[in-house]
Amino acid sequence: MKIDLEKIGSQAKNAAYELSLVSAEDKNKVLLAMADALRSNSSEILAANQRDLSGATGLIKSFVDRLTLDEERIEKIAQGLGQVAQLSDPLGNVTNGWINHAGLQITQKRVPLGVVGIIYEARPNVTVDAAALCFKSGNAVILRGGKEAFNTNLKLVEVLQATLKENGYSENTIQVLTDTSHEVANKFMQLTGYLDVLIPRGGAKLIQTVVQNAKVPVIETGVGNCHIYVDKTADFEMAKKIIVNAKCQRPAVCNAAEKLLIHEDVASEYLPGIVAELKKYNVEIRADQAALDILQGSAIPATEEDWDTEYNDYILGVKVVSSVDEAIKHINQHGTKHSEAIVTNDYKKSQQFLDQIDAAAVYVNASTRFTDGFEYGFGAEIGISTQKLHARGPMGLEALTTTKYVVRGNGQIRE
Amino acid sequence: MKIDLEKIGSQAKNAAYELSLVSAEDKNKVLLAMADALRSNSSEILAANQRDLSGATGLIKSFVDRLTLDEERIEKIAQGLGQVAQLSDPLGNVTNGWINHAGLQITQKRVPLGVVGIIYEARPNVTVDAAALCFKSGNAVILRGGKEAFNTNLKLVEVLQATLKENGYSENTIQVLTDTSHEVANKFMQLTGYLDVLIPRGGAKLIQTVVQNAKVPVIETGVGNCHIYVDKTADFEMAKKIIVNAKCQRPAVCNAAEKLLIHEDVASEYLPGIVAELKKYNVEIRADQAALDILQGSAIPATEEDWDTEYNDYILGVKVVSSVDEAIKHINQHGTKHSEAIVTNDYKKSQQFLDQIDAAAVYVNASTRFTDGFEYGFGAEIGISTQKLHARGPMGLEALTTTKYVVRGNGQIRE
Repeated sequence: MKIDLEKIGSQAKNAAYELSLVSAEDKNKVLLAMADALRSNSSEILAANQRDLSGATGLIKSFVDRLTLDEERIEKIAQGLGQVAQLSDPLGNVTNGWINHAGLQITQKRVPLGVVGIIYEARPNVTVDAAALCFKSGNAVILRGGKEAFNTNLKLVEVLQATLKENGYSENTIQVLTDTSHEVANKFMQLTGYLDVLIPRGGAKLIQTVVQNAKVPVIETGVGNCHIYVDKTADFEMAKKIIVNAKCQRPAVCNAAEKLLIHEDVASEYLPGIVAELKKYNVEIRADQAALDILQGSAIPATEEDWDTEYNDYILGVKVVSSVDEAIKHINQHGTKHSEAIVTNDYKKSQQFLDQIDAAAVYVNASTRFTDGFEYGFGAEIGISTQKLHARGPMGLEALTTTKYVVRGNGQIRE
Repeated sequence: MKIDLEKIGSQAKNAAYELSLVSAEDKNKVLLAMADALRSNSSEILAANQRDLSGATGLIKSFVDRLTLDEERIEKIAQGLGQVAQLSDPLGNVTNGWINHAGLQITQKRVPLGVVGIIYEARPNVTVDAAALCFKSGNAVILRGGKEAFNTNLKLVEVLQATLKENGYSENTIQVLTDTSHEVANKFMQLTGYLDVLIPRGGAKLIQTVVQNAKVPVIETGVGNCHIYVDKTADFEMAKKIIVNAKCQRPAVCNAAEKLLIHEDVASEYLPGIVAELKKYNVEIRADQAALDILQGSAIPATEEDWDTEYNDYILGVKVVSSVDEAIKHINQHGTKHSEAIVTNDYKKSQQFLDQIDAAAVYVNASTRFTDGFEYGFGAEIGISTQKLHARGPMGLEALTTTKYVVRGNGQIRE
């Protein structure tokens, strides 16, 4: 299928401008109408999903699971739209304001970014979720989902667009690329002049492809080789509980712990108990020599590559260190600047860890799993930024906005 | 000259980490020592500058002027270092803080970006200015200046590095690329893994080259096709004063006005007087048909291309419009989203202009020339961002920082 990206971009730009003038109240009404439309079109959506699923042969189970919709999941997606409607609107918020030396009244206020591009995998829930967050924050969106979800995405966007039209808004506010070839994806990533930002949502490979090929500004999200460092003053029960939670509560996500560093003074005492608990979840332990000596048969040797690997699985790398300094050095060298935690009761070491670790989120005595827009109280999440520009850490609605300076004068000129 | 970019990047990364642990007070001492070192090495700096100037044959006068140093300019650069030392330090500022549902104490605080790359033209003052702002904000910097300033830049950085070393800091905190080939510049723009951000400072061509070739995050700066719209309720004297200031006070810079839009009801009355004033500065007027009819012999016809052109010169495009709506539409279509102004005494139209114009800075009854870090009271400027991510408008020290979430718990795990 041939598509005209310039036309799609231009349509999005016009729609974004119109949407930037719409009130929060009016947008919320549309979001609720979209939720109703998804519910009342559920059989059509499920039929489209069935067409995708019947083509999804030879794919791994978890992949097919994420692609699959049923009535319950559609209801959950519809409820998600209602939750986005209830979020407070960041647009128009004044973030700063002052009077300059010439008497100009300067205020800095939040405005939409404009046109947001989202590139993601075959997850139909992301289609609606991303569209809703962009709509709420006043942005037009162009979606490029995984090709395996092609029919489902098309139908979902068709339903959203019909609701837009019924309510007097441009259908181009939410568009989906109907050509899912790599060629079109690459051109999409280079659509400067139309896209204000591109957000990849998915695994490390997808994100790297976008970072390497994009010419429009990208917000890099989601890769996490997260560490927990257990200091010699750590409470054993607390350490065990945090490690098991960070590793096992949901191992496939980016804020799950991938590595355990433990102080040599408590390694012999703590490691066997911690590992025994992890073994209940069938966690594979890949250990350095010192940890291997302690753990005997319940661990296999870690390779150098392990320290740089995000497993996203029931695997944990374990390393014995001689000091907080060594732990910090190891984390800053091998981490992905996502989420890092220390378990300690030593005040000075907790401060040192918080100050010297370079990451989006640094924790004392808590699980890394908290790095999440909902857990942080943002009520939504467009992704977790692991880059340093624009947004760092969990991104809520605010990350989908920019600011403009509004300056009121009475004839001032520059001397 | 062969240089090892990976090595330079790795050195910068290590230096950035060390610098991130240094207090504002200690950094300020070094900045003042750098100022003294520039003064006491002025003859060597001028000799290096002379070598560059003797090679600068066949270049235009304004280019050579920007490349040229003398004792007075070195003193001004040294004073600039003192001013940066006096700026308040954004690092460590808590930008947000709250307790989440699980009782975690979350604070968001300002930290350095890490390693900043600056690509700029043959302007030796930018070498010291950019290095100082990066140093003050805790960032290591890698400078890539125009090849015509090669010897001057090398000498300046040598002096700064010597001061770093004398004060016990790594020389790699401030590095300059000693190979100014395009090949190395292109590789520099793709130094992911080392550079946290790349900031181009210079003309439209330089900026576009960086945007097109960079793989590291870029902050786009500086292109400004700025408009002044004179509404029918505008005060004539105020309008004239603002237009003359915005066009003539310094026409080569990005916040200078390039276009005048004027309401048809006042065009005949206002245009001749405004243009007469502009003619004192030898401003060339390129007008649409309606304005040509009014201005007779004092204007030439504008082409379609004119409306999209940033002249950076004593040239002004003039167009007669029938409403504020037409003005807004024209500006949003042809502007570069830098700085846009309306001159009016109509409250509703002023609000409409402020709301509907999509630009980094929007003005009522003031000159666009105010879009500037110093004029906004930031005490410094690393550039004026015309993109929407990270920073928009004049960028001071804060734009050279990011944030990290610092989270303190007492054993919390995620349910």
